Amino acid sequence: MTDQSAPAGRRRPGRRPGSADTRGEIIAAARKIFAAKGFDKATVRGIAREAGVDPALVHHYFATKEGIFVAALRLPVDPDQAIPLILAGPREEIGRRLVRFLLTMTADPAARESIIAVMRSAMTNEQFGVMIREFLTRAVLDRVVAGLGIPPVRMEVAFAQMFGVVLLRYVLRLEPLASADVEELVDLLAPTIQRYLGEEGAAPA
Amino acid sequence: MTDQSAPAGRRRPGRRPGSADTRGEIIAAARKIFAAKGFDKATVRGIAREAGVDPALVHHYFATKEGIFVAALRLPVDPDQAIPLILAGPREEIGRRLVRFLLTMTADPAARESIIAVMRSAMTNEQFGVMIREFLTRAVLDRVVAGLGIPPVRMEVAFAQMFGVVLLRYVLRLEPLASADVEELVDLLAPTIQRYLGEEGAAPA
Repeated sequence: MTDQSAPAGRRRPGRRPGSADTRGEIIAAARKIFAAKGFDKATVRGIAREAGVDPALVHHYFATKEGIFVAALRLPVDPDQAIPLILAGPREEIGRRLVRFLLTMTADPAARESIIAVMRSAMTNEQFGVMIREFLTRAVLDRVVAGLGIPPVRMEVAFAQMFGVVLLRYVLRLEPLASADVEELVDLLAPTIQRYLGEEGAAPA
Repeated sequence: MTDQSAPAGRRRPGRRPGSADTRGEIIAAARKIFAAKGFDKATVRGIAREAGVDPALVHHYFATKEGIFVAALRLPVDPDQAIPLILAGPREEIGRRLVRFLLTMTADPAARESIIAVMRSAMTNEQFGVMIREFLTRAVLDRVVAGLGIPPVRMEVAFAQMFGVVLLRYVLRLEPLASADVEELVDLLAPTIQRYLGEEGAAPA
């Protein structure tokens, strides 16, 4: 199980470990492993084995399992980087910070398209949906919940608000929502997110 | 254009106008017309012509274009009936009324499945999405907006909140949201919807 040598026939002749090709092979291996096992049960070691490389090399390229997942699905944001930014700063402004971050990020067509592609697949493909649920729960929602000390259901309804806005603004393109200015939407949505996330919950729900 | 006789070969031999079969033929014609023209440009007259029946017969079976659309897509709720119920009652309780109505309705697996099927198609099929956007805007959102005297964008973000909750609860099945009690969610979500819909807007946005 911990044999790090590649299975016969897996390495191409002449490929050096750590070459540009290695990163692509790790990503291809990761897609296969995430699709087969979901996010929770996939491991860096398993991905390394599938790619025929040392786990240290996987960590070198991607730091964490979350980082591999972000690269494998071409997500525009790495929660390892984004969540600390959301959590930093005054608690009484977390609503504005989160809404502005999500609306600014999705205002970029390339970033938005990759997110929407993932949302569509998650809603139409059962297995892909499980993988996204696990990633979203472990890598995003649980961390914000822990950082803020709120009941998880509050984070989920906050996420539902923003998820719904992005879908209706960019996929269904309801007007005037689709053409509304980011700052107008920040004013409208931030108090909602602030109510969900602004205060520590008395008890986890 | 106003010729109400059926094109040659359209009527089956021996079918009487107003038979049980007529209703099915009107629905089949409506699906064809809505798919080709969208909701806004479809007319009762055009659907009647496609079905080879008198428009009065279409009105007899379905009352309105909205009613035909609801039947054609097997939607579990007719906005002609639901919206007056939502708008009736104290304005200061519209948040609770709307949230409880939507969560109770989607708690029924059959009702939920037909709504989710429509949502999925709207998100993945461009033409179907346009049709749903037009129906949603004209038959649902505009009417609530007019009834409440609020800026349309407020209705859209309220709808986004509930749309997101239904998708995350029933399609992505995030926990604890998926298992949460309806009344717990009413307490959490009603103040959000109340803030969006509870007060008349100073100016339409």
